[in-house]
Amino acid sequence: VVELDVMARNIARMAIEARRYGVALRPHAKAHKCGAIARLQVDAGAVGVCCQKVWEAEAMFAAGIKDIYLSNQVIAAPKLDRLAKLARTAQVSLAIDSPAGLEAAARAARDGGVDLTVLIEVDLGDARNGVPPGPALVDLARRLSATGNLRFGGLQAYRSQAQHASTAAERRDLTAAAVAAIVSVRYDLTKAGIECQVVTGGGTGTVSYAASSGVYTELQPGSYIFMDAAYGAIEDESGGPFRCFDTALFVEATVTSAREERAMCDAGAKAVSPAGALPLVVAPTDIVYYAADDEHGRLRWHPGSPGVRVGDRVRLLPDNCDPTVNLHDWIVGARNWRVETVWPIEARGPGL
Amino acid sequence: VVELDVMARNIARMAIEARRYGVALRPHAKAHKCGAIARLQVDAGAVGVCCQKVWEAEAMFAAGIKDIYLSNQVIAAPKLDRLAKLARTAQVSLAIDSPAGLEAAARAARDGGVDLTVLIEVDLGDARNGVPPGPALVDLARRLSATGNLRFGGLQAYRSQAQHASTAAERRDLTAAAVAAIVSVRYDLTKAGIECQVVTGGGTGTVSYAASSGVYTELQPGSYIFMDAAYGAIEDESGGPFRCFDTALFVEATVTSAREERAMCDAGAKAVSPAGALPLVVAPTDIVYYAADDEHGRLRWHPGSPGVRVGDRVRLLPDNCDPTVNLHDWIVGARNWRVETVWPIEARGPGL
Repeated sequence: VVELDVMARNIARMAIEARRYGVALRPHAKAHKCGAIARLQVDAGAVGVCCQKVWEAEAMFAAGIKDIYLSNQVIAAPKLDRLAKLARTAQVSLAIDSPAGLEAAARAARDGGVDLTVLIEVDLGDARNGVPPGPALVDLARRLSATGNLRFGGLQAYRSQAQHASTAAERRDLTAAAVAAIVSVRYDLTKAGIECQVVTGGGTGTVSYAASSGVYTELQPGSYIFMDAAYGAIEDESGGPFRCFDTALFVEATVTSAREERAMCDAGAKAVSPAGALPLVVAPTDIVYYAADDEHGRLRWHPGSPGVRVGDRVRLLPDNCDPTVNLHDWIVGARNWRVETVWPIEARGPGL
Repeated sequence: VVELDVMARNIARMAIEARRYGVALRPHAKAHKCGAIARLQVDAGAVGVCCQKVWEAEAMFAAGIKDIYLSNQVIAAPKLDRLAKLARTAQVSLAIDSPAGLEAAARAARDGGVDLTVLIEVDLGDARNGVPPGPALVDLARRLSATGNLRFGGLQAYRSQAQHASTAAERRDLTAAAVAAIVSVRYDLTKAGIECQVVTGGGTGTVSYAASSGVYTELQPGSYIFMDAAYGAIEDESGGPFRCFDTALFVEATVTSAREERAMCDAGAKAVSPAGALPLVVAPTDIVYYAADDEHGRLRWHPGSPGVRVGDRVRLLPDNCDPTVNLHDWIVGARNWRVETVWPIEARGPGL
C-alpha cells in the first residue's frame, strides 16, 4: 500500500531540490518498477528514469517513459539485443565498466543498427562495479569514443555506501570524497580531449550533497518516493531523524492466529523482503514483528497492551522498500488508508 | 533452473518412501508454485497438493490438480469466498486454529453454498500457529463437527523446527515428541466421540520419521523436489550429509564486472532470496558469493584460482528454495545444463 499524498509530497520535494541546484532529476525505477509512479515523477519534472535491468527499461518505455538510462552493466547478448531494439524508439543509454562490456554494447548497437550513449561507471570506493579513477578509465573512454555506434555520455558515479551512513557528516564526507574523485577523472578526460557531459549519481541519503557539489549534473535517487525503515533510521544534519521524505509504503497484513501476547500475520519473507531488518509495525502501535517465516510474520506485545486479535489488520513498514516492492504484482494507492487506485508493478521480477 | 533428471529422482524417491509406509503423499506446492511440477508429483502418486495461499490453490486447480488442502489459516472474507468458490469444483480442505477461524470458514462455506473439510492445526511446540493439545482443541473440534457446511477432517500437525535441525537424532526426537502429542490429542478426540481421519504433516527433513510413526496418515514435504543449501547442510543418521534428495534447483547468473580476485554477478537479493544464508556457487568451483546487493551478487576467489571473467556464467545454489522460486516468473527445466523446457510459476507472489 502506498499513501498517495505522502508519495506526492516526496516527489515534489525531490523535484524542488533538483531545480534549486539546477541539476537534472532521473529517479531510479528499480525502487517502484511501476509505470504509473514513473509518470508521476516525469510529470513533476524528471528527465526520464534509471533502470537496472533491460526488462525494467522495456516496461518503463511501454508505460510512456521516453528517456531511459540503464545505470548498470548489461553483458549477455540477448539482453543487449533487446536494449538495442528499444533504442530504435526510446532514448537509451547504459553504463559499462570494462572493455568486455564495451565490446558487448558495440556489437549489439551495430547489429541493431542503432547508436547507444554509454557512460563509464567509476569505482568510488564501494568495491562493487566500476573502473577506479586512473589511466584505465581514460583508455576505456578513448576506446569508447572511437567505437562505431557508441557515444561517450559521461560518468556513472553512484556511491552506494554513502546512502545509508547513519550520520549526515559521514554521508557528506563520503559524497565529498566521491566528488573529489570525479573532478580528478574529469580533469584526466578533458586533458585527453574527451568531453564529459553527464555525471550521474546520488541517492536518497545524499541528494543535497550531490546536487550542491557543482559536479553532478544528474541525480538518480529511488527510495525517496516510498522511504523505508532503513532510511528512517539515518540522521539529518542536526542529529535528529532524517525527515526530508516521509514513509509512504506499507505492507498490510491480516492477523491469522493469536494467543496470549503473540500472534501470527500473513506477511512473511514472501511479502516483506528479508534483505535488511525486520519490518516495523506502524499500526496498531506497541506491536513488535519479531520473526519472519516464509509465509508468516510473528508478532508480540507486552502484557497489558491491547495487542491484536484474529482478523485484525496490521500495517507494516518494510526496512528495505526496493526488494519488498519487487515481491508484489500490484501496488494499492490509498489516501488516508482509503483505497483509491491499484497499479500493476509491471517491471517486477529479477528480470532480464 | 531446475535439473529435470535430479528432480524426477527426488519425486520418485519421495513417492517410494510414502508407499513403503502406506501413507498418503500430498506435497507442498508453496515450494514450487508451478502447475507443471505439481502434475509430475500427482502423476507419481501424490493424492493432491498442499497450498499456503488461496491464490496458490486457484493456480493449482487451473493446472489440473483436483484435491487441494490449504494447510494454513485463512481469515479475510474475500479470500475465503474465493476458496469456497473453488470448492464447488475442486476437493478443498483447510486448516483453522481458532474459533474466529472456524466462524470465518463457516460463513464462507454457507454463503458459497459448499461444504468444507476443516482440519485443526495443533501447536506442536513451534510457537507459531496451532492450538496446543488440551481441552480447547477438543472444544474446537466439537464446535466444528456441529457447524453446518463444515466437516472435521483431522489434524494439521507440522513441526516446523524439526525440519532443519542439524542432526538426525534431533529431527527424530522432535518428531517423536510431536507424535506423542498427536496420540494424546487423538485419544482426547476419540473419547469425545470425534473421529480423526487425517493426521497431516512432516517435511523434507523428517518424512521417514513421520511416515514410519504409524500416526501420520499423510506427508506434506515441499523442498525435497529442489533441495537447497540449508537442507544440504543437515546430517543423515550416520552423521554424514543428508543425501536422501539431491540439489536440483539453481540460479544462473552472468558475471557483469570483474577485477583482480573479485567480481559482480547479476543475481542479488531480487534473484536469490536473502531469507537464509547466502547462496553457494556450485560452478565454477572455488568461487565464494560473499555479499548480496539488491541487484548484484559479490563474488571472490583466492589468488591463483582461475576465478571468473566478464560474461562468464555462474551457477548458484540457493540456501532457501521456497522464497527464491517465489522471486521468479519462470522456471527453466534443463537436463545436464541443456535447456529443455520453460514453465510458468503460476502461483508466484505473496498472494491472497
